[in-house]
Amino acid sequence: MPPNARARGSRRATRSNAQAFDDYVQELQKDMLSRCEAADGSGSRFRVDEWERERGEGFGRTCVLEDGDLFEKAAVNVSVIRDVLSAERASAMSERGRGTIDRAGGQPYEAEALSLVFHPRSPLVPTLRADVRRFRVGDAAWYGGGCDITPSYLDEELAREFHRYWRSVCDRHSPEAYPKFKAWCDRYFYIPARGEHRGLGGIFFDDLEEGGGEAYDVSAFARDFSSGILDSWLPLALEANRQEFTKEQKEWQLLRRGRYVEFNLLYDRGIKFGLGGGRMESIMVSAPPSVKWRYDARPEDGSEEDRLLRVLSGEPREWAV
Amino acid sequence: MPPNARARGSRRATRSNAQAFDDYVQELQKDMLSRCEAADGSGSRFRVDEWERERGEGFGRTCVLEDGDLFEKAAVNVSVIRDVLSAERASAMSERGRGTIDRAGGQPYEAEALSLVFHPRSPLVPTLRADVRRFRVGDAAWYGGGCDITPSYLDEELAREFHRYWRSVCDRHSPEAYPKFKAWCDRYFYIPARGEHRGLGGIFFDDLEEGGGEAYDVSAFARDFSSGILDSWLPLALEANRQEFTKEQKEWQLLRRGRYVEFNLLYDRGIKFGLGGGRMESIMVSAPPSVKWRYDARPEDGSEEDRLLRVLSGEPREWAV
Repeated sequence: MPPNARARGSRRATRSNAQAFDDYVQELQKDMLSRCEAADGSGSRFRVDEWERERGEGFGRTCVLEDGDLFEKAAVNVSVIRDVLSAERASAMSERGRGTIDRAGGQPYEAEALSLVFHPRSPLVPTLRADVRRFRVGDAAWYGGGCDITPSYLDEELAREFHRYWRSVCDRHSPEAYPKFKAWCDRYFYIPARGEHRGLGGIFFDDLEEGGGEAYDVSAFARDFSSGILDSWLPLALEANRQEFTKEQKEWQLLRRGRYVEFNLLYDRGIKFGLGGGRMESIMVSAPPSVKWRYDARPEDGSEEDRLLRVLSGEPREWAV
Repeated sequence: MPPNARARGSRRATRSNAQAFDDYVQELQKDMLSRCEAADGSGSRFRVDEWERERGEGFGRTCVLEDGDLFEKAAVNVSVIRDVLSAERASAMSERGRGTIDRAGGQPYEAEALSLVFHPRSPLVPTLRADVRRFRVGDAAWYGGGCDITPSYLDEELAREFHRYWRSVCDRHSPEAYPKFKAWCDRYFYIPARGEHRGLGGIFFDDLEEGGGEAYDVSAFARDFSSGILDSWLPLALEANRQEFTKEQKEWQLLRRGRYVEFNLLYDRGIKFGLGGGRMESIMVSAPPSVKWRYDARPEDGSEEDRLLRVLSGEPREWAV
């Protein structure tokens, strides 16, 4: 074997993984759109908006269903980007332990991502956020992603079922994955200025390197994760969506959505990176369709609203037990 | 005269200015509350919320009127803070040319501020934002502040009258003040990710040092500015508030308020500083009461909504002509 054959072979494998992942997320998006439209049941359809990137190479498909029955707003995005690392991003990645990244920036990268957010009409159905991405620089490629719920009301059984679902997906790959990714999610979706977790979490992972020393196949995990996103939420959402809700509960949901916006715009890393040359409408598509802020709105002690707040303000609970 | 008498005298003067400014903004706030309640006319009253700072010394009075007739939400805040400069803040101030600030932080400071935001119910009345603050470190003290409008519809005559008002206030102190502060406002209230100015501006100033080399008395200017805030907007607002508006116009206002939130949470310097130990409810009191985001909502070419967007996306215009 010539000396560089192994390196070339691995590079080729990484590139063909990229091609495959690109196709994979696009197929997955299509499947999600039709399943969501069927679940929504109102006859509302996704608007499919294809766009090309102004900087670098790349394109995206932003799909939005607005004013549905289950979904007040559902957004499912795919983007495929070929660009050159900025110094800021390279330096942040390098600090997070990606040793092959030159912190000065300038290396070409490719990134394929699927992201979604479901803002349900009913305040009794939790908001779902999820994403998965593959990021390649040279011969190295990493996966990141996550899936978490942000309810307006605490339904402990729903939280348990959601977390158990993700524990079982993770456990198929590594017994260490769920505890690690669950804790990571709790740390990430936190609003320091409020002393509140944004929601009840789920899983969150990043920097999972292909062939990079994890005891499991991270590509297989990333696909298993991606294909589980809808299944982790849709049955629970449809069940919760059967319940009637009051105007007061809807009002509370609109106030809680304010926290969602605060987290995204003040703290979310993805949004901060996106602002540097990203497409603003595809970034802000994650915003709730309608939101309210009232000054110092506090629920009554012992109310259902208060019960949620106490959980969000406390130490994260273990749900998958 | 003993060698340090002049320094001591100047320090005493600066301190007594602080005391006076503290009293001044508190009096001004009281006056604003009663004038706003009278102008609102619905019988809605300001909720007066007095709070003490958890870190350092200080207190505030956050006053909010919600669900009025003219005001969907009006907030008028005063805060008086005694604390120690963080390294981050000291370094930012030092970079902006405040030579007496030790960039390592640790110096005690005092700050008195009044800030307000008026979110009108009618989409035909522009949102008003204003603040004024005095910041003292050791023997040096600086004023900063500004007052600007964010309309949902373009009323050129209103914009002209608002800017002419501020030009005349500025001109009483220095012929250079208005052009400088107007341009500063245009630069500051800009959303790079949207390529849009947030509104039609007004004036914005900072780092005006007492006895620090300006050709005019900056303390007198700061008071003249502060006492003009309501007069610059209220007559125009009451006039615009007489017009009927449609549901579609209200919907457009809710979408435009999304931009207001984006600017505040993504770019505003005051909010970023406030997050480091500030009181979140007093920071977020500036948020619009109700907001919508719709994916890629674009007005029809040539519509009134489009007319506003073209002005916000273009080079800032001169209004005070």
